[in-house]
Amino acid sequence: MPGREFFRTRTVAEALAALPPATATPAEGVELDDALGRVPVAPIVAPHALPGFVRSTVDGYAVQAADTYGASESLPVYLDLVGEVAMGRVPEVRVEAGSATSMPTGGALPAGADAVVMVEHTQVTMPGTVEVVRPVAPGDGTVRADEDVARGAEVVPAGRPLRAPDLGMLAACGVTSVPVHARPVVGIVSTGDEVVPPATADLAPGQVRDATAAALAGLVRQAGGVPRGYGIVADDAAALETVLHTAVAECQVVVVSAGSSVGARDETAGAVDRLGAPGIVCHGIALRPGKPTLLAQAGDVPVLGLPGNPLSALVVFRLVGMPVVRRAGGCTRVPPEPVVRARLGRELPSLAGRLDVVQVRLEQAAAGDAVAHPVLGASALLSVLTSADGFVVVPEDATGLDAGVDVDVTLYA
Amino acid sequence: MPGREFFRTRTVAEALAALPPATATPAEGVELDDALGRVPVAPIVAPHALPGFVRSTVDGYAVQAADTYGASESLPVYLDLVGEVAMGRVPEVRVEAGSATSMPTGGALPAGADAVVMVEHTQVTMPGTVEVVRPVAPGDGTVRADEDVARGAEVVPAGRPLRAPDLGMLAACGVTSVPVHARPVVGIVSTGDEVVPPATADLAPGQVRDATAAALAGLVRQAGGVPRGYGIVADDAAALETVLHTAVAECQVVVVSAGSSVGARDETAGAVDRLGAPGIVCHGIALRPGKPTLLAQAGDVPVLGLPGNPLSALVVFRLVGMPVVRRAGGCTRVPPEPVVRARLGRELPSLAGRLDVVQVRLEQAAAGDAVAHPVLGASALLSVLTSADGFVVVPEDATGLDAGVDVDVTLYA
Repeated sequence: MPGREFFRTRTVAEALAALPPATATPAEGVELDDALGRVPVAPIVAPHALPGFVRSTVDGYAVQAADTYGASESLPVYLDLVGEVAMGRVPEVRVEAGSATSMPTGGALPAGADAVVMVEHTQVTMPGTVEVVRPVAPGDGTVRADEDVARGAEVVPAGRPLRAPDLGMLAACGVTSVPVHARPVVGIVSTGDEVVPPATADLAPGQVRDATAAALAGLVRQAGGVPRGYGIVADDAAALETVLHTAVAECQVVVVSAGSSVGARDETAGAVDRLGAPGIVCHGIALRPGKPTLLAQAGDVPVLGLPGNPLSALVVFRLVGMPVVRRAGGCTRVPPEPVVRARLGRELPSLAGRLDVVQVRLEQAAAGDAVAHPVLGASALLSVLTSADGFVVVPEDATGLDAGVDVDVTLYA
Repeated sequence: MPGREFFRTRTVAEALAALPPATATPAEGVELDDALGRVPVAPIVAPHALPGFVRSTVDGYAVQAADTYGASESLPVYLDLVGEVAMGRVPEVRVEAGSATSMPTGGALPAGADAVVMVEHTQVTMPGTVEVVRPVAPGDGTVRADEDVARGAEVVPAGRPLRAPDLGMLAACGVTSVPVHARPVVGIVSTGDEVVPPATADLAPGQVRDATAAALAGLVRQAGGVPRGYGIVADDAAALETVLHTAVAECQVVVVSAGSSVGARDETAGAVDRLGAPGIVCHGIALRPGKPTLLAQAGDVPVLGLPGNPLSALVVFRLVGMPVVRRAGGCTRVPPEPVVRARLGRELPSLAGRLDVVQVRLEQAAAGDAVAHPVLGASALLSVLTSADGFVVVPEDATGLDAGVDVDVTLYA
């Protein structure tokens, strides 16, 4: 069983670039209520201008601006009060020279008027007359009919997940159904003679419950995909190949968490390569943990072979797998992750040319002064990951980081 | 209609502190597959130690460490090869002094052995014999039976949304159903004579489609809640009160996006106050945009009255409403948001004592040098929000920020 491995090692960026361009999932229509986080297939443009009418932005009086020129506290302008604008109605009143109409915030400017004087700059001392004590220019106190959005303007871009304010904008435009990319289905295949389902109550010595599949399903969801479990396959090349063939036929991305032994990994590599052209794209990534990672493509479907240790598997999937799932879901702009700046609590040695992902716990030393303490422990320990607040990356061109330097910690949200 | 307003203005932190402690939702059980982002009601402890057996972390040979003392390249130790450990099986072999057993990574250490020599430090030149060229100490090449998790140790804390690695840890522990807080139901009530449903094809001048409800529903989901829409209520105190009574009875949090006129706001305040004790907690927050915000409590149910402008409403809901929804869902640790550091593109004036939330667009001037450009425009414009990449907060104790200073931009994800 002990043996050697041949790696064509790539950096994370090279590995991602080496995968053929993603075939994004086809379009489907979703209602606004289900559209949060979904990725539009094309930019969405406004069918009408917004707000669509000249709208007051203040409580006050609609006027002809020219009437107010020269108005001041000591020399107010007196205008005749004519009617009132009601919310949501076409104003029936017309504002003539020398007159003014009471206006609520958000009301439609009546014909004849070209500005709104804020109520704070007026006084009503005699019924039927309003005193204006500050001049206004045409347009003051209003937004133009197309000031929020011009007709035909792009209100939401393609290729990035819809945010809550986007939903508001689409509602404002009357767009209640959005063509978005279907969520990519991501097949998850676990392998290993030692791996048993999570629901197994009692383990024999040597057995472990399948931790990776449950965690991968969570990361797939975070990347906008739908996880589909294919269960646990024993370390048997023929059985693995059968399951992989089904998964590749049914999914847009397939992930195999390989057995942890060299023999199991070799078997996985063989089975993945036999799935079809173009086959294995890279075997081995300059990443710690996560070196024994396999990237392949079976027809249109990217296939990832992850290391057997859950910690390594999840680090690789976060750095390599989630971008692949996002691409398959039509997402061309990766959403930002939460990052905090912290002082590194101890030295981190690393090799040049290799990306090191180090789990850290944050300690708030003082307000605005956080310390990132590396979480120590073998990469076989899942607790290293669950007890961390986030991770620090030691980039490929560094040979380690000194204690006390400022680092960016990507937080687990 | 124009009139005066009386504000008991509070800072955002004071406003949140003034609300009575939240009544978190009761527990419900969810399967692991549905547990991402859910909030456990109590810490979850490991029912068994993990991995539960002494486990090899390398491919190699199980040995008695004492046999290897003094081994070197020039003076190897020769051990008899006895059997082989298979993955997932209780080893049948026993390692005696002078013998070794082939071991895969992840295999259970056989009886008699106390360490594993890495295959890289061995050689098999004669069948049946392994040469060891490096000494090992007891425990080397293994993890202890409780090294990942001790029995009874807390594996997942209460009060914070479950992350993907947590799901992996729970699966590893055999915990497949988790008691979590029920998602809080958040009632969304829109008001305003001018407001019409988003599906309205053609607007009369003066009408606007309800943008706020759709965007609020998105933010409620991001905060772990379930939005429940109560439609659009005209500016009519009795009608509003009826809807609010129903919403307070059916929801854990109620949000009213008030009409934009002073009259409509006054009506909302009256209706909210009549919902029951303790009533209005604060009316007016030292926040721009978002000053005319109402915080109330009807029995156990927090009620938020938001400003009429969608932009203002969404800023307030992000700063005040989302924390309230999280609390109601049992979340005591607010998940981190993505933040980037950027240079401020222009001066931002502000008043001391008031929190200013300024929408910004980010420009990547050079690698690692981002510039935050404030997005200008009236707070009536939703496009100010949708065209922003995030926001900058000018804190209460500042009287503005100078152009060129470093600011933290909270990104919209």
